[in-house]
Amino acid sequence: MEYDEPLFFRVMQYAARADRDVVDMVSGNPDWDAPPALRDGLHEYADAPTEAFQYPPSEGLRGLREEIAERRNVDAAQVVVTVGTAEANYLAMARALERDAGDEVILTDPVYPYYPGKTSMLGGRATFVPVDDRGRLDAADVREVASEDTACIVVNTPNNPTGAVYGPDTMRELADVAEEYDALLVADEVYDHFDYSGRFESALSVDSDHRVVTSGFSKSMAITGFRVGYAVFPHDLVEAAKTRHMLVNISASRPAQQAVLDALQGTPAEYYEETRDMLRERIDAFTDALDAAGAEYTTPDGAFYVMARFDGFPGTMENVQRLIDEAGVAGMPGEAFGESRSDWLRFALVTPRADEAAERLADYF
Amino acid sequence: MEYDEPLFFRVMQYAARADRDVVDMVSGNPDWDAPPALRDGLHEYADAPTEAFQYPPSEGLRGLREEIAERRNVDAAQVVVTVGTAEANYLAMARALERDAGDEVILTDPVYPYYPGKTSMLGGRATFVPVDDRGRLDAADVREVASEDTACIVVNTPNNPTGAVYGPDTMRELADVAEEYDALLVADEVYDHFDYSGRFESALSVDSDHRVVTSGFSKSMAITGFRVGYAVFPHDLVEAAKTRHMLVNISASRPAQQAVLDALQGTPAEYYEETRDMLRERIDAFTDALDAAGAEYTTPDGAFYVMARFDGFPGTMENVQRLIDEAGVAGMPGEAFGESRSDWLRFALVTPRADEAAERLADYF
Repeated sequence: MEYDEPLFFRVMQYAARADRDVVDMVSGNPDWDAPPALRDGLHEYADAPTEAFQYPPSEGLRGLREEIAERRNVDAAQVVVTVGTAEANYLAMARALERDAGDEVILTDPVYPYYPGKTSMLGGRATFVPVDDRGRLDAADVREVASEDTACIVVNTPNNPTGAVYGPDTMRELADVAEEYDALLVADEVYDHFDYSGRFESALSVDSDHRVVTSGFSKSMAITGFRVGYAVFPHDLVEAAKTRHMLVNISASRPAQQAVLDALQGTPAEYYEETRDMLRERIDAFTDALDAAGAEYTTPDGAFYVMARFDGFPGTMENVQRLIDEAGVAGMPGEAFGESRSDWLRFALVTPRADEAAERLADYF
Repeated sequence: MEYDEPLFFRVMQYAARADRDVVDMVSGNPDWDAPPALRDGLHEYADAPTEAFQYPPSEGLRGLREEIAERRNVDAAQVVVTVGTAEANYLAMARALERDAGDEVILTDPVYPYYPGKTSMLGGRATFVPVDDRGRLDAADVREVASEDTACIVVNTPNNPTGAVYGPDTMRELADVAEEYDALLVADEVYDHFDYSGRFESALSVDSDHRVVTSGFSKSMAITGFRVGYAVFPHDLVEAAKTRHMLVNISASRPAQQAVLDALQGTPAEYYEETRDMLRERIDAFTDALDAAGAEYTTPDGAFYVMARFDGFPGTMENVQRLIDEAGVAGMPGEAFGESRSDWLRFALVTPRADEAAERLADYF
């Protein structure tokens, strides 16, 4: 079994070793601060009695599962707290492929590279469905390639890298396709707090026992290193998912779970709104500067990435390295996300120096 | 694919719901305190800048990997920091079974139940080799069942549940068997700080490129809920293991990693010695009381479990529930660890009330 290591870490290492100042727009690591209630929660936990340092329930701290269930309007029994959204997606895709209902995994092109990585690790076979220039997925295209061999359809909305937000009709039709072929629709909604369009609606609004929703707190609370996410499974699939979770990891880390619980309970809506406003401004400033640089780009409806294309400068790893060395800007090569975006570069707006980066790009091109 | 949920949680739930005071000797959850430096580390981390809250290197914080490498006298490049020893064992067994070098996993009987659970989850087939009454494994018995179909040999030393410590000759011979059949020897040494015999020697002392050592800080630092462990892989296997780790979890939780690193650097040897002395005393007191109760038992050379047998009272789940309800003592049914110990019960010495529990048992029988 072979699977490629995602490129993220290779680009980040290259940028870190560069012999000059580089604006890092590679990874999805937020540069804004976590909610104060999360820091308070960690302090409190650090002084907790030794019982609080021992195994939590494998499926997650009860309070955290209940808090998630209430916010997502689902039964807490359906919720598994995972090691970030990464493990949630792994559990969902493993469940889909273990059901003896096919071995094909339908993904989009462009795609978040961990999905094809997980697919081949789990012994599945990836089929890619292209999205349009603005990142929109036509569910009819998914229906066209789906078959009895389809085990799983994985989508990410709001989308990394395109910034597209899939509407509720699309999600309903994807769930229909999953039901028709006894497959699972896995909706990764880790960017659910970063919708600028007002059109995002969770796949949980689609009533289906063939739909798994995954999410996490890495982005919404700016804590990618804490590794706390969750999956909401249909009732008839959740026990098997919990067993795999137990056998692989036993549980997600308890200090991180407790801090997230405290932050969920103690963080006002303004925290999330302010982050969104700040990102909206960054997107505007960055895309204005891209205009000045004569680049083509997509304005994201959600998440915090901008795809851009510079004339005669395809999105290869080689060109990314040139931009690091010669322009002092680090992005991700579009080819890392699939063939359809091999002319593009992806820039993550996780730095207050986004407009400076755009100016450097304008100077360079 | 089917796999059983380990019984631990079921017994713990039953004990928690009991209508009386119960001495909990079910799980391996330490009741002693974590090193003070770990708590200090968590406090410090809670005030760290936002960069410190983001993704650590997937394979673990560099400082932590170097600290582990130095203590274990290996190359840091061989070390992967994992979500507890659980994930370390999962990665090692997955690697063994992915190598197209067979699908048999040789385990001992009795066995730590997560190993057969992982085996079937990973599509392997478990073969059990019995140990003797004192828990000693004869490597010749492993050689006898090994074949070209053997992918993996998994041992745990110091051993849960038997308390046996395997000597260096045994480990050398097990590595020879692994080499002969192109299998991997996985040595789970999570109880390496709990050797009362003075005979424990890490499998790292055996020079072999067919040997993986797994361990963690759950027991040695009394932090089973933090989920920080590690695996030491041979150079030619470590990259594939890191890729799987990245695709499943991305990384272990960073607050937990940082606290463990601070604790490793700031904890004197006395902390570990005092814990060992305390456990040695508990073992003596508990086994003395078992003598008074007329029970048969094994005195552990390592780890912190005692297996005991009461005449006419086999180690079934039903009898464990009777002991909870009627004697107020919760242990694990021996049958959970394999056929050979179905007459026995396992008691974890993770409570200062171990002698009280033994007295209750003496009264009951």
